[in-house]
Amino acid sequence: MTSMDLRPLLRDNGSKIVLYVWDGLGGIPAGPEGKTELEAADTPNADRLLGGASLGLLEPVAPGITPGSGPGHLALFGYDPLEFQIGRGALEAVGVGFDFRPGDVAARLNFCTLDKKGIIIDRRAGRIPTEASKQVVARLAKAMRKIDGIEVLWAPVKEHRALLVLRGKGLGDGLADTDPQKEGVAPLDVRVTDAARPSARTAQAVRKVLKQAMKVLAAEKKANGVLARGFAKRPHWPSMQERFGLHAAVIAGTPMYRGVARLVGMEALDATNEIARDVASMAAAWDKYDFFFLHYKHTDKAGEDGDFAAKVRYIQEADAAIQAIEKLSPDVLIVTADHSTPSAMKGHSWHPVPVLLWARTARREGPRKFCETACVRGHLGLRPSKHLMPLALAHAGRLAKFGA
Amino acid sequence: MTSMDLRPLLRDNGSKIVLYVWDGLGGIPAGPEGKTELEAADTPNADRLLGGASLGLLEPVAPGITPGSGPGHLALFGYDPLEFQIGRGALEAVGVGFDFRPGDVAARLNFCTLDKKGIIIDRRAGRIPTEASKQVVARLAKAMRKIDGIEVLWAPVKEHRALLVLRGKGLGDGLADTDPQKEGVAPLDVRVTDAARPSARTAQAVRKVLKQAMKVLAAEKKANGVLARGFAKRPHWPSMQERFGLHAAVIAGTPMYRGVARLVGMEALDATNEIARDVASMAAAWDKYDFFFLHYKHTDKAGEDGDFAAKVRYIQEADAAIQAIEKLSPDVLIVTADHSTPSAMKGHSWHPVPVLLWARTARREGPRKFCETACVRGHLGLRPSKHLMPLALAHAGRLAKFGA
Repeated sequence: MTSMDLRPLLRDNGSKIVLYVWDGLGGIPAGPEGKTELEAADTPNADRLLGGASLGLLEPVAPGITPGSGPGHLALFGYDPLEFQIGRGALEAVGVGFDFRPGDVAARLNFCTLDKKGIIIDRRAGRIPTEASKQVVARLAKAMRKIDGIEVLWAPVKEHRALLVLRGKGLGDGLADTDPQKEGVAPLDVRVTDAARPSARTAQAVRKVLKQAMKVLAAEKKANGVLARGFAKRPHWPSMQERFGLHAAVIAGTPMYRGVARLVGMEALDATNEIARDVASMAAAWDKYDFFFLHYKHTDKAGEDGDFAAKVRYIQEADAAIQAIEKLSPDVLIVTADHSTPSAMKGHSWHPVPVLLWARTARREGPRKFCETACVRGHLGLRPSKHLMPLALAHAGRLAKFGA
Repeated sequence: MTSMDLRPLLRDNGSKIVLYVWDGLGGIPAGPEGKTELEAADTPNADRLLGGASLGLLEPVAPGITPGSGPGHLALFGYDPLEFQIGRGALEAVGVGFDFRPGDVAARLNFCTLDKKGIIIDRRAGRIPTEASKQVVARLAKAMRKIDGIEVLWAPVKEHRALLVLRGKGLGDGLADTDPQKEGVAPLDVRVTDAARPSARTAQAVRKVLKQAMKVLAAEKKANGVLARGFAKRPHWPSMQERFGLHAAVIAGTPMYRGVARLVGMEALDATNEIARDVASMAAAWDKYDFFFLHYKHTDKAGEDGDFAAKVRYIQEADAAIQAIEKLSPDVLIVTADHSTPSAMKGHSWHPVPVLLWARTARREGPRKFCETACVRGHLGLRPSKHLMPLALAHAGRLAKFGA
C-alpha cells in the first residue's frame, strides 16, 4: 500500500530529529540466563530516556521477512521497501560509495576462471584476494574507458567482485545476467529483456566491453573471465526534502549506508565508525540540517559473527554516546535498528526491532530497562517500520491537523 | 491488500511445521471468577511450550468480523479471506466432503412445501429429519442422472438441505437463486446473472432439473418442492505448494475442514476426531509432508452449545495431545484457532484468537499461563491471521533475505 501523502500537512518549525540506528539491534534469547543481547547489556542512558520516551517494536518489511540493509534503512526513512526497490547493480554501486549518477547503468561483476574452450571452471576465480582483484580492475580500467561513445567505469569491490558502470545518454537497464549461475558451461550472451531501444544499445556496448575484457585478462591464471549480474539504473526517488520537508544528513562510516541515505537525498557528513567522532561530526553541522541519520555499525557486525558478548559490549558503547547527543538538545531522539541480527543466528532476521522515541510529547514508559520485552508493552505498539517517520514528524511538531 | 509474494524468497530446508487448530478457542470472561474457558482450563503442555514460544492474537478476517469456518481457516493457511472467497454452493460441496471437481457447478438445495398452486407454504419442508431427506435425495438421484449431456449429481446434507452438482464441459455459475427468501410466493424462475454462454446453457439445464424434480416429488407430503441457492464453481486457487513451497497434509475428522484444506492443495490423511488417533495418523505420514494442519473440533462444538465446562474439558484434552506432537520434533509448532467461539455467545465471534508459536528462533514468553490476557502482551502482537503463515515459514528457516 502506498503510504499517506504528508506534504499538504508539513510545516517547518525549525525542530530537529535524530535517528540513531544501532545496526542489527534486536536479538533472540540465547545468552546467559536466556537473555537477548539488549537484555544483557547495561544501557543506563537509554533507560534514563524512558522517563520521557515511548517504546515499541518495528517490523521492517513485512511479517516473517528478513530485510537486507537497504530495505531495512529505507523503511526507517519512511520509504516502503516493497514500493522502493533497488536493483543489485545499483545497490552495489551505492554500497561501495561510487559516484553513481542518474542515467548511469551499473552491474555487479564476478571474476571467474575459464578453461581453454571458454567454459567456466570456477565462478569465483578461486576467490582471489581483494588486492589481486584491485590490480585486475586497474588493468581493465586502463584498457577500456569508452565504447561507442559511452563512458566505461570500473571499481573494485571485495575478493572476486567488482563493479561496472556505463555512463552516457539514453542507456537502458533491461539486460539479463551473463552469469549462468553454474560451472561447466560458457558465460551467457548479453540478452535484452525489454523491447526498448536504450536497452538494445546498452547491450551492444556491454557485449563489446565483456569481449574486450576477456582479451585483456587472457593471460590471467585465475581471473581470466568476467560474469555480469543485476544491471540496474540509479533509481529516481523523491527526496526526504520533497516528501517530508526535511533537510537531512547522514553520518555513517560505512559506504553502503551513506549510499542508501543519498538515494533519498541525504547529504553525507564526515564519518569514521568511531561513534564519539561521528557524534562530533553531527554536532559540527547541527545548525545546517533538520534531520540526522546517525549510524552505529558494530552491533550488526558482532551479531553476524555470532559473538554475543561483543554485541553486548557494542550496545553499551552505542548507549554511552547518547549523552553527547542529548547535549545537542534534539526535539526528537530515536534509538532503533534497521533489522534484528541475533548473534544466535549469525545473520539478519525478521524479528521486529526495538524502538525508543524520546520527545516532549511522548507518552512515557517510566523506570524500565530498554529491551525487547519492555518494547512489546510499549506505547508505540508493534508496527511497520515505515510508520516511524510520520511519528517522528508529529513529535517534532512538523505535521498540521488533517481535516477541520 | 494483496499479500507480499513470497515465492522469490522460498527455500526448502526440509523443516516441518505443525499447525494445531483448537477450533473456536478464544472466549470472553463469562465463567466462574470471570474467567474465559482458556483461563479456566489447565493447560500444562501449552504453558510449558512458552519456555520457547511467542504469544500473540490473530484477527481472522477484519476488525469486528465474525468468520465462518471457511474464511477462518483460509486466513490461517495464509490466504486472505477477503481475496479468496468461495460461493455458498461450493462451500456446501466442500463441506460435505463431496468429490467436487474443477468445472463442476454446485448449488445448495432446500426442500420446501408447496401448495396446489405451487405457492411456497414452508421454505424448509417442516425441517424434515435427515433420514427422510436422504430418501428423497435418493429418489431424485435415481430419476435424474443426465440432462442435455450434463451429469446431474445429488447429495444429502442435513434436515431439509441437500446439494446439487452439475458436471460437464463449459458450465457457468452466473445463476441467481430460485429461493425467494419468503413464503406465500412461487419459487423464482432460473435467471442468468451474466451474459456468458456457459451460464445460459447451465440455466437451461437447471430449469429442466428443477422441473423434473417437482414431478418426482409431487406425491411427497412435505418435501414436494425444491429451492436452489448459491450456484458456484469450485474456485481455482494457487496451492500452498505453489505459494509457499509446502507439501501439506490435513488431519481433520470433519469433512468441512478437509474440504477447505483441499482447496489450497492439502492432501487428506485418515482422521477420526479422536485426537490421539489423529496425532498417530500424522505421525505415520511424518516423512511425507512439510506442513501438517491438525484439527481439533470439540472445543468449537462445546462453545456453540454454550457449555462452558465442556469447552474447558475439551481444551484440556487438546492440550494433553501436545506431548505426542512434540515427540515428532517439529521445527515450528503452532497452537491457535480459526475463530473464537465464546460459550457465553453460543456461536462464532469476532474476538481475536490466541496464538502460540514455538520455534528455536522464537522470542520467549517464559513462565506464564496460556490465555487471552497473556497473548495481549505477547511478542507476536495483535495481527491479521494471514500474517501467521509468513511467520511460520520464517521460523522454519524457509525464507531467504529480501534485498541486499
